Order: sequence, then structure tokens, then C-alpha cells
Amino acid sequence: MIKCAIVGATGYAGEVLTELLLKHPNVKIEALYAKIEKSLPISELFPRFHERLNILCNPLNINELNKKADLIFLALPHKISMEIVPDILKRGKKIIDLSADYRLKNFKKYKQYYHADHLDKEHIKEAVYGLPELYRKEIKSSRLIANPGCYPTAAILGLAPLFAKDNLIESDSIIIDAKSGFTGAGRNPIPHFIFSEVNESIKPYKVNIHQHMPEIEQQLGFMSKEEIQITFVPHLIPVDRGIISTMYVNLRRALDMEDLFKLYKEFYKNERFIRLLKENRLPNTKDVVGTNFCDISLNLDAKKKRLIVISAIDNLLKGASGQAVQNMNIMFGFEETTALK
Amino acid sequence: MIKCAIVGATGYAGEVLTELLLKHPNVKIEALYAKIEKSLPISELFPRFHERLNILCNPLNINELNKKADLIFLALPHKISMEIVPDILKRGKKIIDLSADYRLKNFKKYKQYYHADHLDKEHIKEAVYGLPELYRKEIKSSRLIANPGCYPTAAILGLAPLFAKDNLIESDSIIIDAKSGFTGAGRNPIPHFIFSEVNESIKPYKVNIHQHMPEIEQQLGFMSKEEIQITFVPHLIPVDRGIISTMYVNLRRALDMEDLFKLYKEFYKNERFIRLLKENRLPNTKDVVGTNFCDISLNLDAKKKRLIVISAIDNLLKGASGQAVQNMNIMFGFEETTALK
Amino acid sequence: MIKCAIVGATGYAGEVLTELLLKHPNVKIEALYAKIEKSLPISELFPRFHERLNILCNPLNINELNKKADLIFLALPHKISMEIVPDILKRGKKIIDLSADYRLKNFKKYKQYYHADHLDKEHIKEAVYGLPELYRKEIKSSRLIANPGCYPTAAILGLAPLFAKDNLIESDSIIIDAKSGFTGAGRNPIPHFIFSEVNESIKPYKVNIHQHMPEIEQQLGFMSKEEIQITFVPHLIPVDRGIISTMYVNLRRALDMEDLFKLYKEFYKNERFIRLLKENRLPNTKDVVGTNFCDISLNLDAKKKRLIVISAIDNLLKGASGQAVQNMNIMFGFEETTALK
Amino acid sequence: MIKCAIVGATGYAGEVLTELLLKHPNVKIEALYAKIEKSLPISELFPRFHERLNILCNPLNINELNKKADLIFLALPHKISMEIVPDILKRGKKIIDLSADYRLKNFKKYKQYYHADHLDKEHIKEAVYGLPELYRKEIKSSRLIANPGCYPTAAILGLAPLFAKDNLIESDSIIIDAKSGFTGAGRNPIPHFIFSEVNESIKPYKVNIHQHMPEIEQQLGFMSKEEIQITFVPHLIPVDRGIISTMYVNLRRALDMEDLFKLYKEFYKNERFIRLLKENRLPNTKDVVGTNFCDISLNLDAKKKRLIVISAIDNLLKGASGQAVQNMNIMFGFEETTALK
Repeated sequence: MIKCAIVGATGYAGEVLTELLLKHPNVKIEALYAKIEKSLPISELFPRFHERLNILCNPLNINELNKKADLIFLALPHKISMEIVPDILKRGKKIIDLSADYRLKNFKKYKQYYHADHLDKEHIKEAVYGLPELYRKEIKSSRLIANPGCYPTAAILGLAPLFAKDNLIESDSIIIDAKSGFTGAGRNPIPHFIFSEVNESIKPYKVNIHQHMPEIEQQLGFMSKEEIQITFVPHLIPVDRGIISTMYVNLRRALDMEDLFKLYKEFYKNERFIRLLKENRLPNTKDVVGTNFCDISLNLDAKKKRLIVISAIDNLLKGASGQAVQNMNIMFGFEETTALK
Repeated sequence: MIKCAIVGATGYAGEVLTELLLKHPNVKIEALYAKIEKSLPISELFPRFHERLNILCNPLNINELNKKADLIFLALPHKISMEIVPDILKRGKKIIDLSADYRLKNFKKYKQYYHADHLDKEHIKEAVYGLPELYRKEIKSSRLIANPGCYPTAAILGLAPLFAKDNLIESDSIIIDAKSGFTGAGRNPIPHFIFSEVNESIKPYKVNIHQHMPEIEQQLGFMSKEEIQITFVPHLIPVDRGIISTMYVNLRRALDMEDLFKLYKEFYKNERFIRLLKENRLPNTKDVVGTNFCDISLNLDAKKKRLIVISAIDNLLKGASGQAVQNMNIMFGFEETTALK
Repeated sequence: MIKCAIVGATGYAGEVLTELLLKHPNVKIEALYAKIEKSLPISELFPRFHERLNILCNPLNINELNKKADLIFLALPHKISMEIVPDILKRGKKIIDLSADYRLKNFKKYKQYYHADHLDKEHIKEAVYGLPELYRKEIKSSRLIANPGCYPTAAILGLAPLFAKDNLIESDSIIIDAKSGFTGAGRNPIPHFIFSEVNESIKPYKVNIHQHMPEIEQQLGFMSKEEIQITFVPHLIPVDRGIISTMYVNLRRALDMEDLFKLYKEFYKNERFIRLLKENRLPNTKDVVGTNFCDISLNLDAKKKRLIVISAIDNLLKGASGQAVQNMNIMFGFEETTALK
Repeated sequence: MIKCAIVGATGYAGEVLTELLLKHPNVKIEALYAKIEKSLPISELFPRFHERLNILCNPLNINELNKKADLIFLALPHKISMEIVPDILKRGKKIIDLSADYRLKNFKKYKQYYHADHLDKEHIKEAVYGLPELYRKEIKSSRLIANPGCYPTAAILGLAPLFAKDNLIESDSIIIDAKSGFTGAGRNPIPHFIFSEVNESIKPYKVNIHQHMPEIEQQLGFMSKEEIQITFVPHLIPVDRGIISTMYVNLRRALDMEDLFKLYKEFYKNERFIRLLKENRLPNTKDVVGTNFCDISLNLDAKKKRLIVISAIDNLLKGASGQAVQNMNIMFGFEETTALK
């Protein structure tokens, strides 16, 4: 039994993480922290935990945290993780950070997109990007996981096989048109997030300036070994959960569906949470919401040598807390799908 | 052409009122005010008015307001109207107040339900309750209209005919189970109003303590000439607009459907915005949303001498801004349905 | 490991039941049947089962069914179960019937509400009403479970303690105003069930004629030992899952909140799926959806000796498939919460 | 007063068209037809017309139709209009056809995308594509209007200025990623259109095979004078109304925002229903739903010489019935915005 704590238990990712850990046979939730005035039973904050989890959610206390838990999940807004990570690592604890603080290796990009100087440059380098399909080996031996963002998870998983051997696509042709359910925006009581502003509305936002862009570009760049600049347009959709990432890329040379399927099947042959859809099948967020799967569909516009890859995930599971648990399972040698099937 | 101003233009009622006045051939919108830091074009605040209404929305300035408009709509939260009404009346202007401040004749009830002393007891008495189906004559000659609440409109219109001649129902048997779309809650950025807290959720709230209770009890009491105490349970439903009010009352004596239809038809025979549904027809908010109608359905549970009246309105039209315009039409002698059909 | 089959696997209840049984450590899904033209992998019908459940869904074949399974779940529309139950029982198999066919002891009521003669009067009597909180002992030894309807589950659980010792309520005062998410209506492609007819709409239906009425009346009647006639108004709400049942009853004698809480706590003291909410706490479907819980809130309108009980369930879990699994757990001696926590 | 009839009054477009014509001061609705068994008052079919429109909706009778109306709106599924258009034209009547039957000049494309031989090749050529911003002059003198599809309206209006003088974009680079509310799919009771299949779901469909593709390609081709092949991926979003069309094109030469705004402003300078959003402003379906506007936003990805144009319309107004009324206003010399503001 490993002892866990969640810092940031009252956000959407923290709430879902609590649900998952509660089901996990090898884990005990020892402490929950959040930005709240005073300690409250978690079941007061989330009545769904009533008679299921009898524990307080407290204002953050680092000393107590370090005493209580061996593995700490940070489900915080960016800029806060980097203030507490050094102290936790010093105490010999492991961290899975769901915030963006340790995802970007280039701290100048961090400043550009998150509008803050990075306060813990020391640990950026050792942090492992927690996408098991790309970095399983590194995750296994890491003590600091930078759990990927939701849009990057859907995008990178959809495009990774195209960079597996040689770069099959024109690097300046990558267009990612993403659609996300509301929980991706976080539990923030700002005026344009109230129900009737979002309900019955479809809208793009942060066109080509979203903070998940450099994260996608960095990972695709690592794979392609060249600098990648994508075009990225996210859209807010009035559903609770789910992301559809529709991606358009131009192929460097003509490929047919058989080639493409071979490539993707080979790349993901041992992956338990990737489902490659048959030709002419399309993803639907309904099929992945509530699961840790990423569904991927390949569609070829042969006349224009353009490939359309469409991926779907649950932004709170494979896009956040499910992936965090998958990473924990890998780090601690548990069966990778525990609490996720 | 009458000159109008709206105070509280950025709430849901204010926004819809602006839409309606924009369409009204006898009205000019001279000024818009709201609780904002600095003046902004209304089309910046609500892009839907872009290229349709070219006017600033300003922080409230009473002097300017009184100079610019002859009729002032107050679409404010309660407690604020009563601070400015006396001054506006002194200047000889007319007021349609969409807040609750002048609806309750008994200022002790006001204090009990709105948790504040009433600051303008002088004008409570002259204020006319702006429900045209009951008070058309008084509205015509009034300078201060207390525009009814959304739940009271649906409830009172559904039950009024039962008090028309003699009291047909047992006064302690009245149960009102209401279901409202989100806009009834107002444009408040509080945590439990953000999208994913409301979406995919059904919940009761303020059981038997909602501030619209005394308003319903007061009006039913005036009609029945006895004190009425209702049981009132409102529920929040994840739709933008619409109220269904399901009302259960025990009849004092056996009545059949023919009696009941006769009673309701007679009571509402000249009303343009009341639609009495045929037997076995039930209301649906879809049929009234976007209109100023109140649909009413009568259902008899004869064995138990219980009548089930179900009414439906658009909470922002017949339940707020549509009714305000109807009141304006009556006050100024315009055709009553202008801008409302 | 018990061998199970589901007949009616393509309805909402069948789909959710498949999910639950897939998670159950003591169960193997041996066969799935549905009203379909030809056999298809279940993952073709429901892509969410892709790479999770590799089994065909077939047109019903009773012989094969009887060979393959020891426990058969019937997740069928009414009128079909009664045609196949006798044959299955003859083969010594156990049945959990999620349809209405064996719920009503009085076959005249069945005809009245379901518009069909009952074809298997022989087995009506032995069928046990599968509400564990009332009939756990009988369920344990039964071979034919009539799994309760969704509205009856929410209503009966909310009111049962009031009949525990002596009848505390006036029997003709019971009013049940229920609000249900769409899946309660079943997966039927009829015109008024298509998305935009239901979305953004609130509507009552089948006022006082719903087929779940006699089921509630029967169970309340058994407890009270007198004939009970309720007033029942269901409403359709545009959410996927969840029922709020708001119930109004007049007390025979004055009771205070302490009395009432004592009564309910005592009645449900050993129940794992009943959560009695603290005073002034109200249920929200969000808190029960995805769980097998029934949340119950007590609200007293003391002046009128009226009690308002509000209960909430997930119509597809405690209101259908979750309860079916709970019944199975009891019948086969598994821990009652297996696959349900 | 012109006499109008609507054939196909029970679809979404027909229902909204009826609403609009009801408000139009120069029009009288003389007849409504639909594919129904027997004649019914329109207020039986759509209770929202109760006490507002007292007319029967009948099974189609061409003779009667031709006697009653001077202008006939065909709001039909494709393949049906072409069977009745010749007869109506012969009688000297005018037609606005909301179906796809007369939109494609190339009847081979019609067969390819609509899977049927065109039955009225004679009139294809004279039909005018009813997009006023491109064909106002031709619409004025036409007797047969092919009213554009919803996706084509949003797409063509967003891209047209780029072809105004010389072709500014690489013709094989056009990618259109569209998101539509449900009513675009029509009122068809098929299993995957029922509420809970669509609700809480985001899904792409008909990737690069949607029947609106050749319509967009045809119009862009006319403007560019070369053959255009687009990449088109539509997505179904769980809202009632609204389309966001996110379009990605590569510029042939570097242009800055000033150039682009100048181009668009010039092109649309006299248009009443086009709103070009300021730099950094993005469209939201909420801002156009209920209006006949098309909002357009320009976003430049300068490093990649890629322009992202995002347009928004109400699919039932500017995308169907609103545009039909706009066309009627032009044909009959009414002020173009009548019944549309």
C-alpha cells in the first residue's frame, strides 16, 4: 500500500483523481489539500464522497504533507507547483505534477506562455514527460513526472507514429483543430464560465496562442529532430468531458491506408489504452468518456496527400487524472491498468 | 416616441429588455446603465448587439438618467431599486421596477425574506403589481410598477381563476413544485453556477424558503381574502430559459373538467398572452420560450378532489422583461402586444 | 464464477448492465441477445466496448440461452419477458427481470396500465420485488426477481420508513412530483425523442397515468396495509441520467425533525446504498449519477404538518441495472456492493 | 401582400420559415404542406403556433398549391423538389428551394453526392444560387432560387473576399473544419439522433464526403476560375442551433492584417448581414443564433503565411430560412432586412 496525497483536491482533476485512487487496491489516500479557508470533510465539498471517503480536505501544510505521503499528486494551477516541488523532492518523496510547471524544457517558452519566470529551473531537466506511450521506461525510474496537458495528450498520441522512423509529414503543415468539453477550462467562477454563457454555445478561443501549443511543439520536435511550429485552434463545447482533436497534415510522399495502418499498429502494438479505429470509423467522445482510452481514426485525402487524424480522449482521464494514475502504476510496478478499466 | 433608460443592462433581464425595446416602434433607448467600472459600448459587452445598437453602457449616474429618459426600467438585484426610486419619482418620471423591492406590501415580510430593512416605505403602497391579467386598470394609471417575479407569474396565473368568485380550494393544500432554467438565477459568477456544476444536474433548492413565496402568498391572499400559506419547492434545471410550475390543490367541492374549463375560459377570455391548453394537452417550455405566453393545463384527479394545474412561461419574457414591456404598452396606451408577438 | 446472459443488451439498461458485469470478479458474460437482424460484435454496436469485451450480440435464441447461462438478466420492454420466463424457469435457471412484467401482483392492474393480458399468471406470485432494502431475505432465496422501476425505487425508498411501524401519513395526501433524465425513456427512435425536441425543454408527461403508479401504490399499500392512491406527475429533463423525486405528504400527527431522522436512521441503519442527508442538505442528481446510492433529504413544513421528502438516484444504476447487480449479489451470496462501489 | 406557401412545413427549416413569414408585414401564409397522413392544424403539430397561426398543414396537393400561392418555399429533403419544380414554374409561380436539388450546376456531381439522377436538368441552369452577398442582382430577377446549404453559407461568406480580385490563396490548401448544432441534421427519428446519443457528445462525421462539399467547391471555383478541391470535416455538437466554420488557408503571398481587413471591409461594405469582427475578437454562436448575421473573424499565422478565417451563423436563419426570406425580400423589392431584424 502506498501512501498518497493530493494537493489541489477541489479542482476537476483533483476530484476525479480522488475517485480513481479510492478504487485503487494498492493505494491509500492519506491527505487532501486545497486552497480553502478551513478544513472541511471532503464529503462536504463533494457530496458524492459521502459515506465513501471519510477524510478532511485541509489548507496546504507542506510539513504535514511530507510526513503523511510517499507519493504526492499536484493537481494545481500552473505557477504553484514549482514553489513546492523542491521541498518535497528534498524529503525523498515522489511527485506526479498535473500542472504545466515541469512540462516545458525551455524556460523561456514557459515565461512566454505562462507569463511568469520559472522558479525551479534546477528540476526542469530531470522531470519526465508522463506520456507512457512515449516515455514508459523513463517514467519507471523517475521521481518527478510532468503529467501532460489534455490537448497535448490527444494531439501527440494522434501524430506520434508519423515521426516514428523518418518524418513523413511536412513540418509546417500541421494544423490541430481541437474541441473540448468544459471541464478542461477548470473550476473557475468567472463570468463567462457560468452556465448560460457556455450552454448552447460553440466558440473558438485563444487562436494560436493557447499555452498547450509549445508543449505539443516540443514533443513533436523531439520526435522529428527539427523545430516544429503548429497551427492550433481550440474550441469550447458545452459538454462536461471529452476532447476531439482533428488534425490535418500534408504527407511528404504518397502513402496509402495500408501503409498508414501498418505504421500506427506497429507503433502502438503493446499499448493498452490506444484504440486504433478501423477504416471509415470515426471517434465520438461518448465512446471514451469515463475511460482512459485514446481512440484514433485515420482518414486519407489522397488527392491532396493530406492525412486527417482524429483522436478522442476524456480530458479528465487520459487527459489528466487517468494518465496520472497510469504513471503511478508504472512508477510503482503495479499492473498498468489498475483502477483504470 | 418615448425615451427609455435601462438600469441594470448587463443582467439577463436587462439584456432581453434591450432586445425587446430595440424592436419596439414607439420607443427609443436613450441610456443604459450597469454596475461596471467604465463606460463601454453595449456591443462590446454583448456582441449580439454589434451593428444593431450603437450606444454606451455607463456606470449609473442618476442626474443624467433623469435628464435622458421619461420611463426608467430598473433591472437590478433587490435592495438597490429602493435607493433610487424616490429620486426618480420626484423628477416626474415613470418606473417599471423588475426587482423585488416594491412587490411586497408588508415590509416585515420584505425584511424576513430579503434580509434588509425597506428604505422607501413611502412608495410601497402606491406601487402597482405589474401582472396585467389582474391589475390592468391600475397599471394604466400608475407611475411605479412592481414587475412580478418569474415563479410568481407562472404560479399566480395558474391559480388565479380558482379565487375568481368564491374560494374553490382548501387554502392550506396549495403545493407548488417549480422547475426553472438557469437564467432565473441571474448572471452571478459564483462557483456552483459554473457550467459543469449545473449541466447534467437536476436539483431542488431553497425548499420552502425561497423569496418568491411571500409574493405568491400575498397575491393569492388578496384574491381569497384570507391568509394563504403555500408549500413551495423550486428546482434548477440545466436549460437556459423556461419555467414549468406544477401545482397541486385540493378542491373544496367536487368539480368536473367542464366546470373548470368554463371558469378558466371566462377568467381569461380577453387575455392575449394566456393560452389555456385543451384537455389532455400538457405544456412544454419549448412552446413558450421566446414568447410572452403563459400556457396553462388543467388536470383533475377526481377521486381525490385534487386539481393539478401546470403552467409554463419563458422566465425572461412573461416572467420578467416581456411582462415589463407589456406593462409599458399598457401605461402608454400602445397596443398591448407591441414588440411581443 | 457464475455464467450470465443479458437479453436486451442494446437498450440503456442492457448497456449499463454489460458494463457492470464486465467489472464483476465473480461473473462471466456468456451471451448477449437483442432485437437485431443479425449477430454483431457488441463492440460494433457500442464502440465503448472495443478491446474490452469480445463477444457477439445475437438475435434471441432461447435454447442456446438456456444452455449458456445460469443467471439470465431480462432487460426488455414489458410484454416480452412474460413470454420467455416460464421456459427459462423450467430449465432451472435464475432470472432477474428488469421489465415490468412481474412487478404487479394484480394482473388486472397490469392490463390496465400495460394494455395487455398477462400471459404468465402462474409465476407472478412467486416473483420477488427486487428492492433489497425491503425484501433482502426473500431475494436471497428467489429464482425470479422483478427488478423495480426507476421512479418506484426513488419513491418507495423515500417514503418506506413512514410506514415502518404505524402509518404516519394521511394516505390520500401522497403527491409525487418526479423529474427524470432522458435515458429513463429508453432508446426509442420516435420523433419527439430526437435531440432538439428534448434539449432545452422541460415538460411533464403522463400526468397521473404513468405505468409506474400502480407499482408504487402496491408497495406502499403492502406496507400500510390499506389501499393507497397516489398523485404522480413525472417530468422529462434534458440530462442523460438521474431522477429527483419530490414527495409531499401530510402527517397524521405532529412530528419534529428529530423524530423523523430517528425513524429514517433506524429504518436504514444497515443499508449500504442509502445516504440520509443532514438537515438542510438537498440532493443533486450529480451526487448520485454513476453510483448505486439513493440520497434522501427530509424537509418539514411544520405549520402545515407537511413533510417534503426528496430522493435522488441514477435511474440506470439504483433505478435499474445497479439494483439488478445488487440483487444478483444477494442471490449468489457475493458481498452486496461488489461491482457497485 | 404576396401569397406564400411552404412545402415541408414540419421540418426545422419549415418551422422557422413559418415563424418568419408570420412576422413579415408584406406576406400572407396561404398554405402549409408536409409529408403527413392527414390534415392537421399547424398549432397541433407545433403548439408554439397556438393562437398565433390558425391554418391547416396538409398533405401535398400540387394543384391546390398552385392555386393558392404566388411564391412557394420548398423546405424539403433533396430529391423531392426536382419532382415538383417544373410543374410549379409552368404555372408562372416563383420558387425558393431550400433543398439541394438546384444548387449544383454539374448534375454528375449531384448524382455522386446525392445518389440519384437529376430529374429536371432543364431548370438547373436558370436556378440562381441564393447567396445575396454574391448574387443579389441575379436573385432580383429570378423565378427559381437555389437557397444555399448551411455549411456552404458559412464557408463561402468566410472565404469569398480572398477571391475578389486575384486569387490570394493556394487552391489546394483550403481546409474547412466545421461544427454544427443538431438542427442541421434535420428532424429525422433515427436511432443515433435520439437525445442521449447526441447529448454530451462531440463527433466528426462524413469526413471529406459530406454532400455540402461540391457546393462549396463549385462556388469557390466560380470565383477563382480554377477547379477547387477542399478538405472538409464537419462535426456534430450538442446544441440546437449554430455553426462555427474554422477555415485554414495558405496565402500565396505575405499579407498583413491591415491588407486583409481592407479587403474584407471593401468586399462587404454594403452588406447588412455580415459583421466583420475586430482584430482579436472571435465569434461565438451565441452572438448570431436568433439572427440572420454571419460573423467573420480573421486570424493570421504570419510565420506560416496561413490565414485562419472563422465564421459563425445560425444554421436555421442565415443558413436556411432567414436567407430564404432575405432572398424573397430581394425578389419582391421589399426592404432586405424585413422580418429579419
